Amino acid sequence: MTLKEVSDLILQHNNFEILTHDYPDGDCIGSAFALALALKQIGKNARVIMTERLNKYNYIYDMLTESDFKAEYIISTDVADEKLLGSNKKFYSGKIELCIDHHKSNRIDAPYKYVDSEAAAAGEIIFKLIPLLGAKYNKDIADCLYTAISTDTGCFRYSNTTSETMRIAAELIDLGCSSAEINKSMFETKSRGRIELEREVLENMIFCAGGKCAIVYTTLKMTENLGDDETEGIASIPRQIEGVKIGITIREKENDYKVSVRTNDGVDACSFCKRFGGGGHIAASGCSLKGSLEEVIEKLKTAAEEVL
Amino acid sequence: MTLKEVSDLILQHNNFEILTHDYPDGDCIGSAFALALALKQIGKNARVIMTERLNKYNYIYDMLTESDFKAEYIISTDVADEKLLGSNKKFYSGKIELCIDHHKSNRIDAPYKYVDSEAAAAGEIIFKLIPLLGAKYNKDIADCLYTAISTDTGCFRYSNTTSETMRIAAELIDLGCSSAEINKSMFETKSRGRIELEREVLENMIFCAGGKCAIVYTTLKMTENLGDDETEGIASIPRQIEGVKIGITIREKENDYKVSVRTNDGVDACSFCKRFGGGGHIAASGCSLKGSLEEVIEKLKTAAEEVL
Repeated sequence: MTLKEVSDLILQHNNFEILTHDYPDGDCIGSAFALALALKQIGKNARVIMTERLNKYNYIYDMLTESDFKAEYIISTDVADEKLLGSNKKFYSGKIELCIDHHKSNRIDAPYKYVDSEAAAAGEIIFKLIPLLGAKYNKDIADCLYTAISTDTGCFRYSNTTSETMRIAAELIDLGCSSAEINKSMFETKSRGRIELEREVLENMIFCAGGKCAIVYTTLKMTENLGDDETEGIASIPRQIEGVKIGITIREKENDYKVSVRTNDGVDACSFCKRFGGGGHIAASGCSLKGSLEEVIEKLKTAAEEVL
Repeated sequence: MTLKEVSDLILQHNNFEILTHDYPDGDCIGSAFALALALKQIGKNARVIMTERLNKYNYIYDMLTESDFKAEYIISTDVADEKLLGSNKKFYSGKIELCIDHHKSNRIDAPYKYVDSEAAAAGEIIFKLIPLLGAKYNKDIADCLYTAISTDTGCFRYSNTTSETMRIAAELIDLGCSSAEINKSMFETKSRGRIELEREVLENMIFCAGGKCAIVYTTLKMTENLGDDETEGIASIPRQIEGVKIGITIREKENDYKVSVRTNDGVDACSFCKRFGGGGHIAASGCSLKGSLEEVIEKLKTAAEEVL
């Protein structure tokens, strides 16, 4: 369907709930709130459904006032799979009427779907949808959409960033969005717990295969008092090191160890993880291992030395 | 003078040397090489003068082939003050004919100056100058200019990033620049020495004033085997911590300690540093202190506790 058809469909309804995914990120929060704000502006009712509220997005939550209405139309934004609805899955399974997303891998089964995998963020799609709905951009909407796009592109750093991404961000800046403040809060603010975790991770880093493989780990004890947003991104640390071709992050879970593998220079992370029953993409894959931490490290070291 | 006048002036000459500043960054290197490439394209001779070659910019150095000619016209790019020419000052002092820069504080004394302090990077000025010279953009020039603009804006993160910055970056992406690879190498690659330094810095971090002030330090021993590009950016670490209003970085030098002060929420870094004979901007200032490391830390802690 075209974005015009999405807009026509939305305009036939009046009372919306917009679903976001579990472990909410800037793109799902920013996209959902921008859409809700636009819908309220044109006289509709809308609320955003979340599994949890993270303090870092308070400036966005505050934009939308709660109102009492019975929802009749369910839209999901940035949700690639029903299982990502988390604790909301039991209420909303099979009830999504319109799915708006940018994940190529989208597996939502809904009567209407608009998936643009060229978009760096779902926020880019909402940016284009808003004028079709007859709503006007304003600073709040611009702040939501800037948050969506800058977080999903690592502040315009990742390879998903297109020239269109940059032009949309330019328009959002012209609309007066607080780009510098949003970037500071999203990318340059770390809790003391996070700083302590980074220190411990760096302290315990293991190199093998002549420095071409770096392994870091977090234990349940290291992360026991931290929120999900404080532990995210650790997996990007080992691959950043000069000369490292395989960066491995081991996270202790209740029953096993979750392993994230990130690679450089074309080393195949997916086939590496397949050795352990996992998989993923060529430069970013994952698997799970059982045993003691020492055993898990030893297995991964041996595999890395064989590959490199 | 207008950019058209800058272009007319340049077109009257044939053999150029383009000066960069000491401790070269992506903006001075990218701007100087983009200009040199454009000049060679229109049949002129040009070379770039640097105090040192950093490996991270090898992909840029390789774009320009050395040629033998006697320079008759000296242009500086991104150089705010003659003293920033470093070891080249003795050869080029008083010889700059045309100064192209974006620093409001520019103090170069040259017959012709074009300073646009609205530009986030000198690279933005060179981007606009190139078509006026009758040169055509190409991938090499786009890679130089993207490097210039992305490094001086912290990958479009800092408050100097304007909508024009984003639109220029969009055009560079459309020209085929290797934006993702450049960002990876500039922002996501760290040497093992740098990682070790970060670990030590985090390990020794001191909090005071009820967590509103964080102090980190580097000693000569900690940095003895590291290049300048491996130690840069440490000063941004303490201010990133949630709740920190004054972030202080102490760097041991041969004869004293150089102190960088970065603040949040309007705390005046400049007046803080003036207590110790230093100064700077409201959110970023510096000063020098003598004594033992313990004494220096104690003085700064006392001052922070008084201010907060």
